[in-house]
Amino acid sequence: MPLSAPDELGAPHGALHQEVLRFYARQMRSLDEGNVAEWAATFTEDGEFSANAHPRPQRGREAIRQGAAEAAAKLAEQGVQRRHWLGMVEVSAGPDGTLTARSYAQVIATPQGGKAELELSCSCEDELVREGGELLVRRRRVHRDDLARS
Amino acid sequence: MPLSAPDELGAPHGALHQEVLRFYARQMRSLDEGNVAEWAATFTEDGEFSANAHPRPQRGREAIRQGAAEAAAKLAEQGVQRRHWLGMVEVSAGPDGTLTARSYAQVIATPQGGKAELELSCSCEDELVREGGELLVRRRRVHRDDLARS
Amino acid sequence: MPLSAPDELGAPHGALHQEVLRFYARQMRSLDEGNVAEWAATFTEDGEFSANAHPRPQRGREAIRQGAAEAAAKLAEQGVQRRHWLGMVEVSAGPDGTLTARSYAQVIATPQGGKAELELSCSCEDELVREGGELLVRRRRVHRDDLARS
Repeated sequence: MPLSAPDELGAPHGALHQEVLRFYARQMRSLDEGNVAEWAATFTEDGEFSANAHPRPQRGREAIRQGAAEAAAKLAEQGVQRRHWLGMVEVSAGPDGTLTARSYAQVIATPQGGKAELELSCSCEDELVREGGELLVRRRRVHRDDLARS
Repeated sequence: MPLSAPDELGAPHGALHQEVLRFYARQMRSLDEGNVAEWAATFTEDGEFSANAHPRPQRGREAIRQGAAEAAAKLAEQGVQRRHWLGMVEVSAGPDGTLTARSYAQVIATPQGGKAELELSCSCEDELVREGGELLVRRRRVHRDDLARS
Repeated sequence: MPLSAPDELGAPHGALHQEVLRFYARQMRSLDEGNVAEWAATFTEDGEFSANAHPRPQRGREAIRQGAAEAAAKLAEQGVQRRHWLGMVEVSAGPDGTLTARSYAQVIATPQGGKAELELSCSCEDELVREGGELLVRRRRVHRDDLARS
């Protein structure tokens, strides 16, 4: 197969990978800009968000929305702008069509009038499903690199 | 729709998103490596570059080239290598075909013999148009996270 | 050509670019998680890894595997989790089909119980070839921004 040919088998996979990148850009900006309803809506109704930094998972959209609202209020009070970067994304599709997406995450924090800082480095694993044509997170597990595995 | 199917409606959008990623990689490397003519050529002739860090926008390719040349000369004198990373890119197309691309930006600075440092975290919004088949920036607005909105 | 149309000429190129992004995500995670056999297998049998930080290139899969194993053992002993981010990727295809991929790299290091840190900023250039349908690195050259050109 000539190297310059499009990778035919890989094309559907490429489109999904591409779509996940776009989904993450929109999703994380909604969190970082404090649009917590929009953020919560990127999870399924029974979505779960767990992290080795949290004592227990956030379960369901309402808990996820509330967790984000509390964090956003605290950041606003401190005058800190956070940016979540997801990168180095890998996507695979299971036999039932569920997608598994693994990524790296950087959390960057910038205080008003201060210095941008790399706050956290993480690894992230999502279960993604499609509802009404849109990708949604059914389960997100975040592993902060500075903490022991949960 | 099975999850593993390519997202048909999204495919043209995916190709544009993809093209914007490639455009940004090339554009920012030209800036970072001091190829200021190449950098200026990624804007339209009447392109505008504004930032909440600048008292006024750079208007037109020549002003954009000159601004970059001054910055490049200063960095060379200081022995600092800068790298601009654009990520978390979202692209949307307006009814007239103009693209709006939003992204996050990291500016990383490394002094010769010194330590790499995250210098700035920004949010970026571009208006992109196509001329002679190529994407060009008609308007870029950069918001540094440490400064108030302009 | 309407702006919203997929970029026909660019489509095969887009698929390759896309594939390189996926390859890098998988490749660098294998290194970061200490899967050194998997890491070595992403190079050709005669693959070469050179860096301006190294006195001489690593030549061949076995040397590349051994170099990674030594680094992984040292990081494990220090309790440091490293993450390599490759971004701002540009891909071009030569007349013989060999791909050249240029990228930026960030190396992020997080000590157990400590603070994530941007350890290095680099520029990277790969020669990629296809064997048995899979992309492999035939030659990687890494330039650390803090060091003189090799």
